[in-house]
Parts: sequence; structure tokens; C-alpha cells
Amino acid sequence: MAKFTNLKIFDNFAIIKFSKMKNLTQRRTIRKYADRKVSTDLLHQLLEQAERTPTMGNLQLYSVIITKDDQKKAQLSPAHFNQPMVKEAPVVLTFCADFRRTTLWAKARSARPGYDNFLSFINAATDALLYCQTFCNLAEEQGLGTCFLGTTVYMPQMIIDTLKLPKLVFPVATITLGWPAESPAMTDRLPLESIIHEEAYEDYTPERIDEFYVTKEQLSENRHFVEINNKKTLAQIFTDIRYTKKDNEAMSEGMLKALRTQGFLPSSD
Amino acid sequence: MAKFTNLKIFDNFAIIKFSKMKNLTQRRTIRKYADRKVSTDLLHQLLEQAERTPTMGNLQLYSVIITKDDQKKAQLSPAHFNQPMVKEAPVVLTFCADFRRTTLWAKARSARPGYDNFLSFINAATDALLYCQTFCNLAEEQGLGTCFLGTTVYMPQMIIDTLKLPKLVFPVATITLGWPAESPAMTDRLPLESIIHEEAYEDYTPERIDEFYVTKEQLSENRHFVEINNKKTLAQIFTDIRYTKKDNEAMSEGMLKALRTQGFLPSSD
Repeated sequence: MAKFTNLKIFDNFAIIKFSKMKNLTQRRTIRKYADRKVSTDLLHQLLEQAERTPTMGNLQLYSVIITKDDQKKAQLSPAHFNQPMVKEAPVVLTFCADFRRTTLWAKARSARPGYDNFLSFINAATDALLYCQTFCNLAEEQGLGTCFLGTTVYMPQMIIDTLKLPKLVFPVATITLGWPAESPAMTDRLPLESIIHEEAYEDYTPERIDEFYVTKEQLSENRHFVEINNKKTLAQIFTDIRYTKKDNEAMSEGMLKALRTQGFLPSSD
Repeated sequence: MAKFTNLKIFDNFAIIKFSKMKNLTQRRTIRKYADRKVSTDLLHQLLEQAERTPTMGNLQLYSVIITKDDQKKAQLSPAHFNQPMVKEAPVVLTFCADFRRTTLWAKARSARPGYDNFLSFINAATDALLYCQTFCNLAEEQGLGTCFLGTTVYMPQMIIDTLKLPKLVFPVATITLGWPAESPAMTDRLPLESIIHEEAYEDYTPERIDEFYVTKEQLSENRHFVEINNKKTLAQIFTDIRYTKKDNEAMSEGMLKALRTQGFLPSSD
């Protein structure tokens, strides 16, 4: 009997192994949150666990600004194109590339830091993004919902001002976080063959492009978008409305300017 | 009694919840790999599952180059400062920011893409890094070992040439992957208080810097590094040897040049 009980426990373990990160394989972006707090203990526990993420030279070139205050959320909102999640989520997290802490440490230890340059920004942004994604994976495994806001790098100076980010600190990712109050359908993804290349980049032929994008183009919601926007193709929704050349170029200038202001690119004076 | 049993089950659930992604909370970087293949099925399954990671406009602005061929690994090795993992690991994965596939799709659909700019590079790099980190978390939960190579952005042009990356494709992360043949000690991390800020960035006082770095500085291996390198402080190991101002500035130039070559920054001509 005792043996049988042990076997059952073992079976349960096997199931647990296979269901690891099950939430991830079913992942949806969550934009509506229940009226329920995310406890500080849970938030801190997840942020701490995520610290296991690899980082350059183990320097942890990131900081996270935790926004819970309604007034601060309202101040952040315009930088995120007033997407309602920013004001509605119980928690907003802004993940920053941060070479300031390391630089202050070096200066306090008779060392001469040299991190006011573009490579150092890329190194710190990489650390911050990897850390952010582990945090999201952990939070979602706990049943929390997240929405990744790509808007963070669109008007970074507004975020820098609102969160009082000093030089060598730069916002690279924002997520809204809370307990889900919706269960949206899972969105489509491209077939794996479209994103992997064996040994070297195999350029895409028109035939393969057709093959990879046909499912996305035929989804009823995408056909609907095309119709109501008076476009001919789904791709035009992206190029003409959502991510236009004009906007991208203007925001590129804004971001490069903010990188100069924050000390990661030489000032143009 | 039934109530009590239910309570017990509930407790078990709590325990299971806390042990999810247990491998992550025990994570070590793995640099030595067993002489055992990573099956193509498993690799593809993990790469596909990682596709659930959020991505800008669901465009999946990334590609992964899978390197298994010994000759290709040898060609990649110098770009990664000849770190032995590149030649020794069964699999090397290079994660690339990729706006080429999307651009080709747009051109094939009477749309005018405008992604040859800096913001588009940041958007695609973000997609690629988030995807990479989910992949690593999934792989490690399966017992695989990974090593993240920060060297990818140090001499990107070498990688671009070796992997034949066309314009609008740029390498942002490399990992080596295999079954672990070592079990190194877990590395230290900074205390959580050092990386989080409530509502706004709270700048670091010298006292707090001391408090946050003292554990790291007192680790016997770090004291040993300082001693054998004839330095006075651990910070000098980073500023004078590992990540010097001179190297960072030279590699910043190299990376900006490669971004121009790949079409993400205006050419300086």
C-alpha cells in the first residue's frame, strides 16, 4: 500500500514535469485585470527569482521602476499612447537599461568606468530585456496576466522625465501586470520553418513568403481589418497605419536624441 | 474529513505552484556539455513553444540560425573570442533581429515598408531577445544547459559575414546549448532592493552602494581575482580588464558601422 502510494506520487511528478511552463504554451496577452491587488510579497518574490537570468559579467545592468500610484500611472499613460492598461492595471513595471549603479560603484572604488557609449547601452538593454522576459514567464506561471508595451521606446524622453531616470539609465520595456479578468483567444504565430535557418541565412523566395503568411492573411479578423480600413492587403495595415515609415523615422530621431541625453551616445554639439 | 482532504490538496497545489520553473531558481550557466546530441525534434519543439513570447504587432521580428556543423562553429568561434563552448557545444543558436522577412512580405503585397531605421532595429532586437530568453527558460526546464554569449554584439560584422545575414537582419544574442556535463556553483546576485525603485528612480547614495556590493566584493573568488591581477578593488577588474572604456568605444563604433551596413542606420556617406 505504501509502495502504491509512492508510485502515485511519482506519477504526479511526471505530470508536473510535462506540464512545466504549461501556462506559457497557452499564453495570451492580458489587457483587462481583476479588481484584486498583486501582493508586494509575490511581486518581490518573482522579481527576485528572475534575477537568476544571465547577465553581462554578473553586473545586472538593469533597474525596475514599480508604479502602483494612480497619479504616476496617469503621468505615464501618454507615453504609452494612452492605452487603457497603464491606468487600469494594478502594477506597471518599467524595465531600464542601467549602467548608473555600476558606474557609481566603480567611482566609489577607485575605478574608471567607461560605459557612456553605445555598446554599453546595448549590453544593458540586453540584460534588462532578458530579465524582463524571465519575470513575465514566472509571473504567468503563477497565473498573473501581462501586457508588453512596445511603446516604451517610442517616446522614451517622456518616461525618463516621469520616472526621473538619471544619466546612463534608459527605459527599454514596460509591462502591465495583474490578475486576468479576460480570456482572449490565442493569437496566431508563423510556422517554425519561417523563423529558423540551418547553418546560414536562407533568403526567402516569394513562394515561401506566400506559404508562411497565408494563414495569417486568411484569418477572419485580419480580413475584417483590411476591409474596414479600405486597404488591399494585410501588410498595408502595418506599413500604412500601424508602423509607418514616417513615424518610425521620427521616433528613431527621438530615441537617438534621448540616448544622447542619457549619455549613451556622444552629444552632437 | 472530506474538507480536510480538500485542504490538503489545496496545500499541495500551493507547493506545486511554488516549485514551477524550479530549474530556473537553481539556474547555472553551463559551459561544458555531455557527448550527447540535442535531438532535432526537441530543439524544434522548444523553438516553436517559445514563439508564444509577445512580439511587436505579432510580426515576430526575429530569426534563429542553428549551427551544428563543426566547420561553421569554427568559423563563428573568433567572433566569440574563441570561447571553447562555441566549438564544443552540440548546438549554437544565433538570435537575430529580422525585419527582412516582414519587408519582403510587405513588398510582395503592394505595401511600402519603412523599417530601415534605428527604431525598427530596437523593435526587432527586443523581439529577438525576449524570444531568446523564453527559449532558454524552456530549454533549461527540460534539463538542457545554456551559455549566453554577450560577445555577439562585440564584432557583429564577423557573425553577419559567417552566417550570410542580409540587410535588415542583425545578430543580437548567441547561446550554446547541450546536455550539462558540469554542475558549477550558483553565482551571486545583488539584493533585490538594489534593482527596484518605487514610483521613481531613487538615486544611490555611497552608503547604499557599499551595502549592495559588499557581499560580492567579499566572495573569496572575487578577492582572489583582485589579488592575482594586482588590482585594488573588484570594480577595477571590470573597468581595467574585462570591460574597458577603450574596448567599449572601439566596439561601439564597430556596432554602429554594422548597423549602417545592415540598413538600420543611415549610411554616413
